[in-house]
Amino acid sequence: MIRKYSFGTPLPTDAVVLSLPTEKSPLPFFNLSRSGDQLILTRKLHPEDRIFGLGESVRGINKRGFLYRSWNTDIPHHQETTESLYASHNFLLFFGPESLFGLYLDDPGRITWDLGFTRMDTAVITSENGDLDLYLIEEDSLTEIARSFRRLTGRSYLPPRWAFGYIQSRWGYASEESVRAVAAEHRKRGIPLDGICLDIDYMENYKNFSWRKDAFPDLNRFSEDMRRDHLRLIPIIDAGICAEEGYTPYDSGKAGGFFCRKADGSDFRAAVWPGSCCFPDFQREEVRRWFGDLYQPLLEAGVEGFWNDMNEPALFFTDSGVEEAFRKAEEVKSGSADYEEMWMLGDAFSHMSNNPEDYRSFYQQVNGRQVCHEKVHNLYGASMTRASAEGFRRFDPEKRFLLFSRSSFIGAHRNGGVWQGDNFSWWSHLKLALQMLPNLNLCGFLYSGCDLGGFGQNVTEDLLERFLQLGVFTPLMRNHSALGTREQEIFRFSSWEIMRDTVRVRYALLPFLYSEFMKAALSDGMYFRPLAFDYSEDPRAAAVEDQLLLGESCMIAPVMEQNSAGRYVYLPEDMLLVRFRSPEDYDCLPLEKGDHWIPFSLREFPLFVRKNHPLLLCRDEECSESLDDHSFTALCWMNRDVSSDLYRDDGFDSDPVLSEHLTRFSLNLSGDCPGSVPGVAKFPIVL
Amino acid sequence: MIRKYSFGTPLPTDAVVLSLPTEKSPLPFFNLSRSGDQLILTRKLHPEDRIFGLGESVRGINKRGFLYRSWNTDIPHHQETTESLYASHNFLLFFGPESLFGLYLDDPGRITWDLGFTRMDTAVITSENGDLDLYLIEEDSLTEIARSFRRLTGRSYLPPRWAFGYIQSRWGYASEESVRAVAAEHRKRGIPLDGICLDIDYMENYKNFSWRKDAFPDLNRFSEDMRRDHLRLIPIIDAGICAEEGYTPYDSGKAGGFFCRKADGSDFRAAVWPGSCCFPDFQREEVRRWFGDLYQPLLEAGVEGFWNDMNEPALFFTDSGVEEAFRKAEEVKSGSADYEEMWMLGDAFSHMSNNPEDYRSFYQQVNGRQVCHEKVHNLYGASMTRASAEGFRRFDPEKRFLLFSRSSFIGAHRNGGVWQGDNFSWWSHLKLALQMLPNLNLCGFLYSGCDLGGFGQNVTEDLLERFLQLGVFTPLMRNHSALGTREQEIFRFSSWEIMRDTVRVRYALLPFLYSEFMKAALSDGMYFRPLAFDYSEDPRAAAVEDQLLLGESCMIAPVMEQNSAGRYVYLPEDMLLVRFRSPEDYDCLPLEKGDHWIPFSLREFPLFVRKNHPLLLCRDEECSESLDDHSFTALCWMNRDVSSDLYRDDGFDSDPVLSEHLTRFSLNLSGDCPGSVPGVAKFPIVL
Repeated sequence: MIRKYSFGTPLPTDAVVLSLPTEKSPLPFFNLSRSGDQLILTRKLHPEDRIFGLGESVRGINKRGFLYRSWNTDIPHHQETTESLYASHNFLLFFGPESLFGLYLDDPGRITWDLGFTRMDTAVITSENGDLDLYLIEEDSLTEIARSFRRLTGRSYLPPRWAFGYIQSRWGYASEESVRAVAAEHRKRGIPLDGICLDIDYMENYKNFSWRKDAFPDLNRFSEDMRRDHLRLIPIIDAGICAEEGYTPYDSGKAGGFFCRKADGSDFRAAVWPGSCCFPDFQREEVRRWFGDLYQPLLEAGVEGFWNDMNEPALFFTDSGVEEAFRKAEEVKSGSADYEEMWMLGDAFSHMSNNPEDYRSFYQQVNGRQVCHEKVHNLYGASMTRASAEGFRRFDPEKRFLLFSRSSFIGAHRNGGVWQGDNFSWWSHLKLALQMLPNLNLCGFLYSGCDLGGFGQNVTEDLLERFLQLGVFTPLMRNHSALGTREQEIFRFSSWEIMRDTVRVRYALLPFLYSEFMKAALSDGMYFRPLAFDYSEDPRAAAVEDQLLLGESCMIAPVMEQNSAGRYVYLPEDMLLVRFRSPEDYDCLPLEKGDHWIPFSLREFPLFVRKNHPLLLCRDEECSESLDDHSFTALCWMNRDVSSDLYRDDGFDSDPVLSEHLTRFSLNLSGDCPGSVPGVAKFPIVL
Repeated sequence: MIRKYSFGTPLPTDAVVLSLPTEKSPLPFFNLSRSGDQLILTRKLHPEDRIFGLGESVRGINKRGFLYRSWNTDIPHHQETTESLYASHNFLLFFGPESLFGLYLDDPGRITWDLGFTRMDTAVITSENGDLDLYLIEEDSLTEIARSFRRLTGRSYLPPRWAFGYIQSRWGYASEESVRAVAAEHRKRGIPLDGICLDIDYMENYKNFSWRKDAFPDLNRFSEDMRRDHLRLIPIIDAGICAEEGYTPYDSGKAGGFFCRKADGSDFRAAVWPGSCCFPDFQREEVRRWFGDLYQPLLEAGVEGFWNDMNEPALFFTDSGVEEAFRKAEEVKSGSADYEEMWMLGDAFSHMSNNPEDYRSFYQQVNGRQVCHEKVHNLYGASMTRASAEGFRRFDPEKRFLLFSRSSFIGAHRNGGVWQGDNFSWWSHLKLALQMLPNLNLCGFLYSGCDLGGFGQNVTEDLLERFLQLGVFTPLMRNHSALGTREQEIFRFSSWEIMRDTVRVRYALLPFLYSEFMKAALSDGMYFRPLAFDYSEDPRAAAVEDQLLLGESCMIAPVMEQNSAGRYVYLPEDMLLVRFRSPEDYDCLPLEKGDHWIPFSLREFPLFVRKNHPLLLCRDEECSESLDDHSFTALCWMNRDVSSDLYRDDGFDSDPVLSEHLTRFSLNLSGDCPGSVPGVAKFPIVL
């Protein structure tokens, strides 16, 4: 049951697809109050209450015990007390002895989520706008609440199948040659690869939709050559449009009046990579159409995937911000060198970036009305993604394109995936990546992953390997790193063969994982789930913070600590441990429900499979297109006949019907079962 | 066996107390090379090698897999890739299939420890000075290497017994009234307390050895009143001396020529809390004498404990640093607003603090020779501590005083304890605090602890409680927090009774913990040890990163994750779990060697005791002086008669002889054994 409550004059967000009547009865579960414009929801928490949700945010799967702020922010150096990340996903799920409901705040402005931070026993949620639609969802289970929420907000984005391949990326591939060399090195060493991301280096002076003719002389030919080698180019597109007369996107945007404006009617400008930029007002349909069509030449050149970046929007600085900082500098310089003032001066310059003042200084058109950007800030990236996706659909409505974005808002999950934003080569960010995944799924973002190895700072060999071992299971499996950091391609490291074998396992699992993903997406389910979803009666399972359920039958539990020789795993039921070293080299170990310490060398990682549920491995190949999704090795710990479904399609169909693509298959207990481990079947099947 | 190797012309550091001949044979274990002044040690690492040591540094107990730099730095926002903290402890212990030795670099300058960071299989240690004594220690066990190293560097500092009491601290106690109120609130609510730290607020304009007469009118009377209530005041002393004529310490220091100087012979100055400061040249004996005597008026006023701070030394900025930053600002302002330059400008101002240029710009006298501060930088805090300790000894050679320092170097462990520097209210800093403890012990710093609750940022109730549960076992148990953060005294929180009971457990354990500490200190042993030390044949034990051995018979394993309902513990042998809620309320659970998941509610925390080893609990009191260390409840999981020793002394004797203070006691299996758990004895004993 979904109930809608409305407060004030909500701004449209495109998040919800169901049209529901507004409840007249008082809001249950929360104490409601107002303070100025603010709407404040308060709820006493039971000591055993857990809170899931908030998609991309710091801390655990259970969000209790901290204060989060919905305010999309570019912040690569995030740590456990960072209140805002790149995205805002305003959905919470309360789960406890007296609570089982979902809460969605359809509000694109600032929201504060004090989930037992100020007081351990109280949640206080504050909307700054105060104008919003609020949805309460009650069902019999966590899983059903999540499904209802997806029906409310619409089906998750479907990427093409090749987007489940391994993707290599780095800020710094500054020429066609460097990209070709990276590709060739992967092919030469047998490291599977499906795509290479182009970061801002490929653009002419970082201008969107441009192409450095010196370094990338012929995009068409380059793209064709790569495709012949089963590789896709995946260029970046940033939010800001360089304010340079003669640059076509600027001229057409200016002529159309498509940019965000200041109160005086002039275009808002801020410096980003290309220098002074204007920012498309993506809230307007005609702006999205104009922007979406800008992708067309790249699509025509054969590009089938993009990543949208800098769309919080990140702002390096504005003229007025610079003036203000220098004014402060003058003030301090002429005064005495007091240390507090000197410190504030450092802040004055570093706070020029993503300055709240700047976000308050421009306007967007919402339903023909000028609305301060601050009130719709968290929609910006989502609306850019929508513009792109609408453009792709106009270009080819039958086909799926790859699209993933840094900034997002619920609703964007229908149009693209997300990566988890710029991160660091930190072990803590590896764990955070895992912990964000189920909450992103809950908010609709099934196609997701983190920058494997870490974007900023220098990775170590063991950290990259452990990141890859998580990445084997994330729909987006991208190795990405920043200019100036240690080169992070697998082949740079002495233990590259171990990492290659890890990626090869991904390819051996790809048809199975793709099937699990598509089944989840097409049934409004979750690909990754907290253990609480399937084992809600088991308090031990509900508290697990470093393991995830995957699809219908699997659980992952990656090693996420340096120098560890293994890890503890809690099995909520009997499961088969498959400990991988390569597609050919793995152990099968049936394990009983309960606690286990399991040794894992650096090259080993586990997948757990529920009893009487089959796992399918195919022969790995150098690219996803070459995979044979008919012949498999089936692994199953079974004590009865089992049957299951494999989802297969052409990898591109934009509107597949689930039932039309399922192939039913059975494993018979009495059949040919030549596994070497008693009770564990392992045999070839052809579907 | 300790072997000494000498390279170039080593600078004296006061770290080593044994005089050893210099080896003429080539250095074993390492490949030795030179690059300019640098001395470079290289060693191939076995995949199973572990490396302990480096005292205060980030990451795990096992230091492998990162690059650390010896360069004392004020850096409260440290995280896993912070290369330097407040102290430099240049001792490493290699432990693996082909390694069992200690390496000490007696070198006060920059050292880089690449311990498998650049290459997983290689350690590369680089001394920038290149002039150093190097000690290799080989013994039959990790424990014996640690003991030999302590004999090389001298007996650990002994704090007075009252310093094992609970200490409340906060930057912001700005008056005698506020301190009295905090004390009274503890007494009123029965939260045990032995001391209150005074942060910089108590000083007149932050000037060392001064006292704000408005807010603290009569120190003598105040100190006496507190003492009557069994409370000690523990004032802070900073390294810098305010450069203000008429301020006695400055005038006498100036007259004596006691400050560090620039190349032109003028005093080096930098801004710290009081504004422009000079920095005592602590390397010189006469300077230490002068500085040590400055404590005298406070000692005469009844103060028995101090904390030495800002002694890396932290530098906010120098005049030349400010000029340079403004020069850059002018340069950027007059040019085009390029984003990279704008960013560098922010850096220019924030990098004014603790700027390497500044540390290169002044000199210290070493053996009558002017030596660039950079070459002896890491000694600065240690030498300040030495000055203080020498002053205390002159004041009263018979008595122990409390002294703990932020910055340190090996050698300082004979003169004072350390706290782990300014930290944050982060769960990751709770875990880091635990992981630093055994390595600090290895380097001689037995009296140590972290700022419980975290110094910077806002603590949550559960985080403070979990910090306190670690603090129950750390010799220094101080709750400390920064101005502007949430008030962090126990009584501020709704669950203060839980926290009070946690502190009460500390007091019930205090005679036992004090005994374990003194036995370790007086036998050149370790109070906290990695599990590898006692269970070196057990690879599982050697890899444990979140449990510590304590004293002769105990192990701690605190809960360090938010929202967790328990944790995994690995028992390297059969142990008794004592799960505390209060001194009266605890469970005793005999557990077998192996893996256990143990539930702990927020108010519960464990102490594990080896089989046939007794734990002694006394009746808790509001202060350490009131504790009866004759009457105990003995707890013991026993299957034979057991006997043990309790160390007791007057708590002040500056040179106690271990054997003279041990009381032998026995527990008989056949005796009165009214414990309710089979096999676990629990009965009163009087010693």
